[in-house]
Amino acid sequence: MRIPYSDICKMLSTILIGKGMDEVDARLSSRLFADASRDGVYTHGLNRFPLFVSYIDRGFVDVKAKAECESRIGIVERWNGNNGPGNLNAYRAMERAIGLSHDNAIGVVALRNNNHWMRAGNYGLEAAENGCIGLTWTNAMPNMPAWGARDARIGNNPLVISIPYKDTPVLVDIAMSMFSYGKLEQYSMEGKECPVDGGFDDEGRLTRNPDAIRKTRELLPMGYWKGSSLAIALDLVVSLVSGGRTTRDIGELEVETGVSQFFMAIDLSLFPDKPQMESKIERTLSFIDSSKPRNEGICVHYPGEGMKRIREESMRSGVYVADSVWAKIEALL
Amino acid sequence: MRIPYSDICKMLSTILIGKGMDEVDARLSSRLFADASRDGVYTHGLNRFPLFVSYIDRGFVDVKAKAECESRIGIVERWNGNNGPGNLNAYRAMERAIGLSHDNAIGVVALRNNNHWMRAGNYGLEAAENGCIGLTWTNAMPNMPAWGARDARIGNNPLVISIPYKDTPVLVDIAMSMFSYGKLEQYSMEGKECPVDGGFDDEGRLTRNPDAIRKTRELLPMGYWKGSSLAIALDLVVSLVSGGRTTRDIGELEVETGVSQFFMAIDLSLFPDKPQMESKIERTLSFIDSSKPRNEGICVHYPGEGMKRIREESMRSGVYVADSVWAKIEALL
Repeated sequence: MRIPYSDICKMLSTILIGKGMDEVDARLSSRLFADASRDGVYTHGLNRFPLFVSYIDRGFVDVKAKAECESRIGIVERWNGNNGPGNLNAYRAMERAIGLSHDNAIGVVALRNNNHWMRAGNYGLEAAENGCIGLTWTNAMPNMPAWGARDARIGNNPLVISIPYKDTPVLVDIAMSMFSYGKLEQYSMEGKECPVDGGFDDEGRLTRNPDAIRKTRELLPMGYWKGSSLAIALDLVVSLVSGGRTTRDIGELEVETGVSQFFMAIDLSLFPDKPQMESKIERTLSFIDSSKPRNEGICVHYPGEGMKRIREESMRSGVYVADSVWAKIEALL
Repeated sequence: MRIPYSDICKMLSTILIGKGMDEVDARLSSRLFADASRDGVYTHGLNRFPLFVSYIDRGFVDVKAKAECESRIGIVERWNGNNGPGNLNAYRAMERAIGLSHDNAIGVVALRNNNHWMRAGNYGLEAAENGCIGLTWTNAMPNMPAWGARDARIGNNPLVISIPYKDTPVLVDIAMSMFSYGKLEQYSMEGKECPVDGGFDDEGRLTRNPDAIRKTRELLPMGYWKGSSLAIALDLVVSLVSGGRTTRDIGELEVETGVSQFFMAIDLSLFPDKPQMESKIERTLSFIDSSKPRNEGICVHYPGEGMKRIREESMRSGVYVADSVWAKIEALL
């Protein structure tokens, strides 16, 4: 079904206020969930809202808790998320990084004790919509085997880079696993194979079968040893700079909570060549878009271009929500 | 053959001085080439030295030129490499980023007009050996098709993250292509297949055959669309922040020169929990190393662990250099 964006925001907001969240926070948190689905990231948008609410009910997410600055080291601020709502804490950490970048061209906030931030790309968009390059990542519970291993001891640690560009930023939002569990579940529901190998089956063979991978939980890192190495380094950097938990530490908790996150903004408006930047970006993007396609009739796109089309359709015809997901959300009222 | 590290440094230094480089620079540049081979990165160490010298002879690399600071925006310094030797410029840009990080916890230098920096990992090691986390990347000429494309319009844009750890840092040094041309050439010479798909053959099928890929020049991005997107974003960020050339712009030059690079250092010594950091890193690395291996008898390693073993062997028994490579270098005397 398709539901108007503003109706979704109202519905989620009402539910969150019912759970004790204050009104301003509920509006922002709801918008962040709605934005994810609006842009086609259903797995970390409305699909995940019922789980988020269950984490409030079970006491893992404290709706009243706010992130706060604990210390400042040089230009780096260390914040404590106090196990508040993950998307609100992350939004406010990036907001502060953007604010700091107005003074120093670069702003950095390292956040510990946060809950799952839902869609990573939201905080990249936030930076870009404020005229900043955004660079942000999170660690996660152990959910992927390191390259050469069978048991999950590293996180898929999503990484985001965003660049302001016209009305829709260039946005890279990638987990270090080839596919997230949410994406595997989606392929299963649609009766599809993964487009490329996504993990190992129970005989240790690489497979595209989403059910086989969900059974073994042996996800393939993107680029094999490359994504594995990157995931390990991102975890170490974020936990050292924030003073927060490593993936290993998170694995000792009952559920995935208390993660560590890094937010960096670069304020392009301070650069003297800012007026030339849009055309510089445009030259690169149009060069890529006019590549010779591998398969005739299939266009080559830059990162964020697909999102732009889905977003326009969502705002025109309503945001797509699976019937079963909407039913679950209505039941939370 | 195996040659003592110090003999290699002396030999390369003598050649560079003969090309007009001053003595201090020649010693540093030679050491950086030798370090790459010492650590097992032969493709960007001694194997590439003859090409570097030919670029001096042809006037692309100006041995007398030095990188210099052009402007400062907040804490970001913009440097111009003036087409000097790529490894010297990069080393000094990271040196400055490290210096800046002592004041602000974070130091950033964006460098334009540089030549190829050879082994990317050297500048990550430089940061880590000075107690800093290092984050650095470069753009490159168009040498890889974007995902879904056939013609090379994006760069493989190597990315480095380093973390200080005991005597050998944790080091990730990855190009956005699954394999570099140097690596494909090495597999060809050894009569080996790539361990995983590395590109497309002339019928558009994914292949592990290094010669087929070298023929089409249709490299596969690591993680398919993920490495492709990351390469595009890294190119935009580095060219905007440095005010330098994009991959597209570099493609208009006669050879790969005038690239843009980003250097960031985070000084961990300023953080109050510095004394606990080594054991925090150790807990994560030993957790990963004790993973259940996919293939019995094959250990799981953290990034940089393999390098450490090769480095120790090089310092004990001499640095490995292919006979043909050493013959070419001797001919440059």
